[in-house]
Amino acid sequence: MKIALDAMGGDFAPKEIVLGAIQASREFGAEVILVGIEAEIQAILDQQQAAGLKLEIYPATEVIAMDEHPANAVKRKKDSSLVVANRLVKEGKADAVISMGNTGAAMAASLFTLGRLSTIKRPAIASLMPTKKGISIILDAGANADCEPENLLEFAYMGSAYAEHILGKSNPQIGLLSIGEEETKGNKLTVEAHQLLKNSRLNFVGNIEGRDVHRGACDVIVCDGFVGNVVLKLSEGLASSLMSWVKEAINDNAFSMLGGLLIKKPLKKILTPMDPAEYGGMPLLGLNGISMIGHGSSKAKAVKNAIKAATKAVEQDIIGAIRQAITNS
Amino acid sequence: MKIALDAMGGDFAPKEIVLGAIQASREFGAEVILVGIEAEIQAILDQQQAAGLKLEIYPATEVIAMDEHPANAVKRKKDSSLVVANRLVKEGKADAVISMGNTGAAMAASLFTLGRLSTIKRPAIASLMPTKKGISIILDAGANADCEPENLLEFAYMGSAYAEHILGKSNPQIGLLSIGEEETKGNKLTVEAHQLLKNSRLNFVGNIEGRDVHRGACDVIVCDGFVGNVVLKLSEGLASSLMSWVKEAINDNAFSMLGGLLIKKPLKKILTPMDPAEYGGMPLLGLNGISMIGHGSSKAKAVKNAIKAATKAVEQDIIGAIRQAITNS
Repeated sequence: MKIALDAMGGDFAPKEIVLGAIQASREFGAEVILVGIEAEIQAILDQQQAAGLKLEIYPATEVIAMDEHPANAVKRKKDSSLVVANRLVKEGKADAVISMGNTGAAMAASLFTLGRLSTIKRPAIASLMPTKKGISIILDAGANADCEPENLLEFAYMGSAYAEHILGKSNPQIGLLSIGEEETKGNKLTVEAHQLLKNSRLNFVGNIEGRDVHRGACDVIVCDGFVGNVVLKLSEGLASSLMSWVKEAINDNAFSMLGGLLIKKPLKKILTPMDPAEYGGMPLLGLNGISMIGHGSSKAKAVKNAIKAATKAVEQDIIGAIRQAITNS
Repeated sequence: MKIALDAMGGDFAPKEIVLGAIQASREFGAEVILVGIEAEIQAILDQQQAAGLKLEIYPATEVIAMDEHPANAVKRKKDSSLVVANRLVKEGKADAVISMGNTGAAMAASLFTLGRLSTIKRPAIASLMPTKKGISIILDAGANADCEPENLLEFAYMGSAYAEHILGKSNPQIGLLSIGEEETKGNKLTVEAHQLLKNSRLNFVGNIEGRDVHRGACDVIVCDGFVGNVVLKLSEGLASSLMSWVKEAINDNAFSMLGGLLIKKPLKKILTPMDPAEYGGMPLLGLNGISMIGHGSSKAKAVKNAIKAATKAVEQDIIGAIRQAITNS
């Protein structure tokens, strides 16, 4: 099995991307095709004494920047690391593609190159949400800003298949993100989607509210891509604000600095499983191929974990599982 | 000036509600009409030796429970503390009404009793968001689950008037909550609302994203009531989860418990201004009268601060300011 990795995408590319591939190769024998500017990638491999690992370079001469217009960049830069990495999957030379670069471009490249599953109307971005009760998945996290009730039902089936086959949840619980628990509460979209979900074969537990998202109230949280993207970015922003305030309190005086030292270890133990880098990337579901995108700020650990997740998605044949879930729906 | 307070609304009513009124009266001479079951309220006043304060009781025999159907309860229970408190404002016997009870019922009671301002199509719930840079206001926080672009423009005018007259911000900055900074990013609603806001007389700073909400990126955050309600409840839930993890880390062992003691004071200093109880309530904007609703879990401090905010809204004639803002738009 081979994973095509866009070595040039991300705020810390190519260094942290290549380092992530090296770690994945050393830790669990991942076979990775590093796609990008050959000399730059080779220099990092040499420096890290990575000879002997199952890493190969596939050259691509162009790079799509983080702030380029997604669709235009993908159409214009045919020899960009991102587009070439996707093409390797399309041509059967790799089993999955991963990019930590420009999210919109990564989505566009996979959609254009791999195409949709014929049974899926709207592919979605699934984001993993660590909670104290385990990992939840929320989708759509930003691919479809405007949705119909039928799209939300489709997201639920795809999310359920992912939770079952990749996260190992049996009979995953599906919740609909709304603004009130009763089925009549919500906006037009969620009120209609509630009925579709209720009458589906899914293990639908009903509406959940914003306050339930991080409590692990269910395995799969379904919402439109606008709401999902707001949830994702709000959570990131608030968690980072709160942690910076705790740090500020610790740095207040000599006593509090000592206090900070004393709680550091247990705090790390509790917060580490909540770190998004532990999960690495967000799978694009509904495509005719396995594609994961990651945060632009990803470092080696997130890259390594994205490779791990992609490997599992290949092993568990997530594409087949989604196809089957929709066919049986 | 008199504030009508629904003494029976809220998880800790009537005790904490009456205590809040007593604090407001002692600290800044508030005149409060406590509406509800006379004997219960009087017992608390006696116990607190509140004779001599400018507090009076206005009897109401019924109570609307936290889980009753809002509109039905308001229509049926004409002599409930909530409905009577709103009626006092309608009849000119009080200048503002406050309830910490059933949010939907509180909204319905104010809407039915006080009515909309003739120039406003959709009244909105405004929620105050404390940030390190000061207080932001987000609206709509849940009154209107489905919105048209024109509604968002109206929310922006009302929020701007509130931020200027009550929060003391000059030329308040208005941000539109979306999923990308560019004006073409977002859903259909926000893309169209962006153009209306851009062409308005407001100080529109453009789209903001989820991660900017708690950074104090602007004074007024505009969104539909579905998204606003998700933002509000998600923020509450995540903040409480994160703080419980910090507490868990502190309770890990004897050393970390000592560490917790050492950072307690600076942490409290930083987090206190972020406590929603400091701001007490959420104003309902667009009504023909001043009405504030609060969290069901409100204790005396939140009630006191809601009375303070309502007092300011009366003094600064927020209704007149909103009417004028819309007229001049």
